[in-house]
Amino acid sequence: MSILVVGSVAIDAVKTPFGKRDEALGGSATYFSMAASFFSKVNIVATVGEDFPKKYVSLFKSKNIGTEGLHAAKGKTFRWQGWYDYDLNTAHTVATHLNVFQNFRPEVPKNLKNSKFVFLANIDPELQYSVLKQIEKPKLVACDSMNYWLEHKKKEFEKLLDKVDIILLNDSEARQFTGEPNLMRAARTIISFGPKAVIIKKGEHGVIYFSKDTHFIAPAYLLETVYDPTGAGDTFAGGMMGYLSKAGRMDEATIRKSIIYGSILASFAVEDFSVDRMLEITMDDIEARYKHFKQITKF
Amino acid sequence: MSILVVGSVAIDAVKTPFGKRDEALGGSATYFSMAASFFSKVNIVATVGEDFPKKYVSLFKSKNIGTEGLHAAKGKTFRWQGWYDYDLNTAHTVATHLNVFQNFRPEVPKNLKNSKFVFLANIDPELQYSVLKQIEKPKLVACDSMNYWLEHKKKEFEKLLDKVDIILLNDSEARQFTGEPNLMRAARTIISFGPKAVIIKKGEHGVIYFSKDTHFIAPAYLLETVYDPTGAGDTFAGGMMGYLSKAGRMDEATIRKSIIYGSILASFAVEDFSVDRMLEITMDDIEARYKHFKQITKF
Repeated sequence: MSILVVGSVAIDAVKTPFGKRDEALGGSATYFSMAASFFSKVNIVATVGEDFPKKYVSLFKSKNIGTEGLHAAKGKTFRWQGWYDYDLNTAHTVATHLNVFQNFRPEVPKNLKNSKFVFLANIDPELQYSVLKQIEKPKLVACDSMNYWLEHKKKEFEKLLDKVDIILLNDSEARQFTGEPNLMRAARTIISFGPKAVIIKKGEHGVIYFSKDTHFIAPAYLLETVYDPTGAGDTFAGGMMGYLSKAGRMDEATIRKSIIYGSILASFAVEDFSVDRMLEITMDDIEARYKHFKQITKF
Repeated sequence: MSILVVGSVAIDAVKTPFGKRDEALGGSATYFSMAASFFSKVNIVATVGEDFPKKYVSLFKSKNIGTEGLHAAKGKTFRWQGWYDYDLNTAHTVATHLNVFQNFRPEVPKNLKNSKFVFLANIDPELQYSVLKQIEKPKLVACDSMNYWLEHKKKEFEKLLDKVDIILLNDSEARQFTGEPNLMRAARTIISFGPKAVIIKKGEHGVIYFSKDTHFIAPAYLLETVYDPTGAGDTFAGGMMGYLSKAGRMDEATIRKSIIYGSILASFAVEDFSVDRMLEITMDDIEARYKHFKQITKF
């Protein structure tokens, strides 16, 4: 089943201790759809400016990523500039130019309103909500957010929580939103707002999946070289949603597998700048790493 | 096979957001031996002062922990006072009174010199080395350390590394010692000094075990309530060494199991102050949590 993702398509300038890259393809919807495209057809709903390189649109198309909902607006593309220190867990923002993203009012193309798998990447919760209202009968809705919205649009975010199946937050966001330092209790509080499950992302330390009755702890795949962690969370979500939509089931075993595939995709993504590493790998590489992951976590 | 542990037996005063405890039984050898005692006979080599409560000596004996090497010296017992914030990963020291520990020159009782499993808890690497020289033919030597020794006695620590089988360090110590932010490369550097394996402890994020050719990633058991993280690392080591000495084997599968048992013991220990929780639980509780751990990490 095909997936709809709403989020940002951006041009990034990133510097890490291992190099730098300018004019790189970035944005949450980009990372998400590149990862998901290994498993399923993905359609992007996003906006870009007149400066957005045509080669990137061609790139999406070459990966079977639908760009019908990629709106070309007057102005410049969303641009983010940032850097990471050796502690690659924290992004330091130098500049954020929202540009055309500032006036982004996501419109789901008519023929995509029946999308069954929907990922609401990190944008204003009111916009995320407006997208949901355009989807006829989704089978699975997952949603991301960030500290800014949790602080400034808490009510809107809470309203949205009741409408999604899986909410993804990183550990500090989960703690911030709930005021609860313990992740297990934080997860329980979040679930009390309505979602079926919450996935707490801990960066290099992996993720924890909580449903009402169970939880699943997955460490991150260990890497010797991390070049650029930008987009790891969205890549994770893409791998996970991609696998789920391909499987077409949402039982516990399938969800756990999808989480490992998400981690595997993220582990590849951070091995190079932008989405470059995802352009190099094949499904065989993904399966080989999945198998290795199983081997190094088995007891 | 019985285990010999050399380290501290202390009296702690600990404060966490969830309560406080004075005159509590603490110290690395204490936590280690309490955990290991679920699996094997343990013998402590440590020193205490005249103020050390007799009830604690009786407590050791009641758990089949040998106190023959627990030297009663003139003066006061080692005392540590500290507190933790909601971020229970970091201990804030208020006061450390080494007292009799300052002149501790560990002497292994004659009849324990043939101990097969040896744990050198965090003390001066020169003293750790002196203990090793007293042991006739150990089968497995594991060793802990801390940032202070890695900085001030680096050469001595490096010399020791060549003589031990497993070195346990927390992630920041591994990074500090090697100057390498990536844990995989840090582990490889550490192994180049001689040990067969290194276990990097990441607190609430679990541990990573590295041998020359393989690695094993184990998340921590997730808890809803952590009361006092003091001694978690030594408890982990105790559970691990206890299981290994009981098993009497050191193949990869046994080592992995021992690491999970170590994590389970540590997860119990932090549920109350001092070693109190370990005094409440039975082997059945440990096995039940081991089974649950398997269930929540399986995919």
